Amino acid sequence: MFNFKIKKQSNTSRARTGVLTLPHGEVQTPIFMPCGTKASVKSLSPQELVDLGCQILLGNTYHLHLRPTSELIAKMGGLHNFMRWDKPILTDSGGFQVFSLKDMTTGSKKKNKLKLTEDGVEFYSYIDGSKHMFSPKNVIGIQKNLGSDIMMVIDECADGKSEKKYAIDAMNRTHNWALKCFDEYKKQCDPNKQTLFPIVQGVTYEDLRIKSAKFIDALGSFGIAIGGLSVGEPKETMYKMVDVVVPHLSPEKPRYLMGVGTPEDLIENVYRGIDMFDCVLPTRLARHGAFYDETGRKNILNKKYELDESPISNCPLFGLNTYSKAYVRHLMKEKEILGARILSMHNLWFLFNLMEEIREAINNDRFDEFRLNFYTKWEDYKPNNL
Amino acid sequence: MFNFKIKKQSNTSRARTGVLTLPHGEVQTPIFMPCGTKASVKSLSPQELVDLGCQILLGNTYHLHLRPTSELIAKMGGLHNFMRWDKPILTDSGGFQVFSLKDMTTGSKKKNKLKLTEDGVEFYSYIDGSKHMFSPKNVIGIQKNLGSDIMMVIDECADGKSEKKYAIDAMNRTHNWALKCFDEYKKQCDPNKQTLFPIVQGVTYEDLRIKSAKFIDALGSFGIAIGGLSVGEPKETMYKMVDVVVPHLSPEKPRYLMGVGTPEDLIENVYRGIDMFDCVLPTRLARHGAFYDETGRKNILNKKYELDESPISNCPLFGLNTYSKAYVRHLMKEKEILGARILSMHNLWFLFNLMEEIREAINNDRFDEFRLNFYTKWEDYKPNNL
Repeated sequence: MFNFKIKKQSNTSRARTGVLTLPHGEVQTPIFMPCGTKASVKSLSPQELVDLGCQILLGNTYHLHLRPTSELIAKMGGLHNFMRWDKPILTDSGGFQVFSLKDMTTGSKKKNKLKLTEDGVEFYSYIDGSKHMFSPKNVIGIQKNLGSDIMMVIDECADGKSEKKYAIDAMNRTHNWALKCFDEYKKQCDPNKQTLFPIVQGVTYEDLRIKSAKFIDALGSFGIAIGGLSVGEPKETMYKMVDVVVPHLSPEKPRYLMGVGTPEDLIENVYRGIDMFDCVLPTRLARHGAFYDETGRKNILNKKYELDESPISNCPLFGLNTYSKAYVRHLMKEKEILGARILSMHNLWFLFNLMEEIREAINNDRFDEFRLNFYTKWEDYKPNNL
Repeated sequence: MFNFKIKKQSNTSRARTGVLTLPHGEVQTPIFMPCGTKASVKSLSPQELVDLGCQILLGNTYHLHLRPTSELIAKMGGLHNFMRWDKPILTDSGGFQVFSLKDMTTGSKKKNKLKLTEDGVEFYSYIDGSKHMFSPKNVIGIQKNLGSDIMMVIDECADGKSEKKYAIDAMNRTHNWALKCFDEYKKQCDPNKQTLFPIVQGVTYEDLRIKSAKFIDALGSFGIAIGGLSVGEPKETMYKMVDVVVPHLSPEKPRYLMGVGTPEDLIENVYRGIDMFDCVLPTRLARHGAFYDETGRKNILNKKYELDESPISNCPLFGLNTYSKAYVRHLMKEKEILGARILSMHNLWFLFNLMEEIREAINNDRFDEFRLNFYTKWEDYKPNNL
């Protein structure tokens, strides 16, 4: 039930296209996966996602474990059935949220109180301060309950500015947990229904990243993730780390760069050999009024759009190309749900469309040209190596 | 451009069906009109409204005057073009909001500070406390800017528990303003593009209601509204007032009962000869988790729905009949936009469908039977006269 077929490998970069076959369907890579954090990609219906070009989405173990709980979702037939999504789902392990949401924990005394052991991590719910434990055993159990096509190991995502000593400790714990997760996967899961991706860590230290890449690649998994990037380090450092890691990963395995999703980051990391991406950015930005056009990120709340009759989007779906910028600005100023919906759909469509153009360019041996051409208009970022 | 053709008059009640022809299209009556308060029916797109069966919607002069202003909307080609809605629109005059939102006014000093004169009403914006004036002249001007098919006169909507002395004053002011509004309508508007409805007032005093009905009917307008009901008085009193007013209205004029929208109120007032209704209830209730089924109003946040796999809706549109109650409950608990969307669509569909059934029953001489049958299942209310 799991297969990854490389369709086209670029001759001039590590960019490639492929077809990822998963129990719930095929996915064309490179792919962008939107986040259905709490069993819903914010503001969109499953059918709208399909129509916009979504092939796979991500669910969050941390949030779903806290509410409504993975046990409830299992009783409802798994996450696919619960949220009426019949295409593939990838779930994260919840590790990232345990670390990133620790400062949001209810009750000041409990703030920052994470208890890390070789067995896992004890944390307090950001909702009600209740105590929870994520271990290799139970993050696999939770993801089994959710029934995702692709599960992730629990890892420790160290901040991009971490000192080396901590980076080493976090990496070693991540490796140790990965081994235990695979043991649990073999005990608990049906390998025809779910696969498990381990995660490369190592902060921004080249030697750690190489060591981690080699260790993770040797685990013999179907696919591999790269974590701990886009977490505070400069863009060029992120790209450098991907450049360092990718040559040590078996080419036949799909490569997933976690939490990455600006247009330039998608292009730059496809160029460096990444096949899969996820990010909350397109829908989160939308809810704050931000949208993409061919020159970069804009904000519709800007006064200059007050009387702008030009369409908010080029997308012909759902009448998106019929709404004026002036109208969407009014909706966002009034906090009307339709405003967030229009911008969320537009931003997702923009990224799905970008990925489609990227795949087509790679397949036709003109990805370098596509990349160069993209940056002639894009004002938000220009790579050093163009 | 304005025509009202009665298709069928019931022999056993005042219920009737008709076709209302307006500049932006035909409307089958009796009709329920959802509220697009701030140029958006909350959470829905125009296309979704059409697909659910919406034939005409309501825009709010008060809200649109404050933001984005009617001048901006006029520059954008009017409300139809601004919000991409090409079917008919009715706008209220803003009077109701001036009175009902006065306690929400920003700045404690300005609270309740309405200045009423024969010329109009001076009020403070609930958004920023800025001073505004609604007069017959400018509410017509604003509605001309909006470009609605049906405009409303400015009226004074007295509370359902008002004493008679105030009820008389408010009614007289409403009549006086109605005359001035028609003068302004003749000066400012194109009668082929916009029509103006005057409003019957009189609180719950039968003699005042009759006096007001006669006065308003004599104005010679195309249609007539009944205001000041469903504002705190008992249900049976509301129905009684409609019973008192309707015989004094010319039968060829469409009759619009303002701000009414529970299922039983729709049925009871159609029975009493009403042709048009509007209410924020279906979408407002939805955002608080309430939904209708054939037995009455329910709330999805109720614990009993936690593991309920039955569909939230019978509506086959937008996959509404595929979502389980358990899933929608989860979405609402998590404040996910999709939850409010599903319930808003369901509630609107429920009312549109109810009105469709009502029209069909009247046309087939079986509305009394339909009404009787409806109350055998409906648990929220039973009329006295069944």
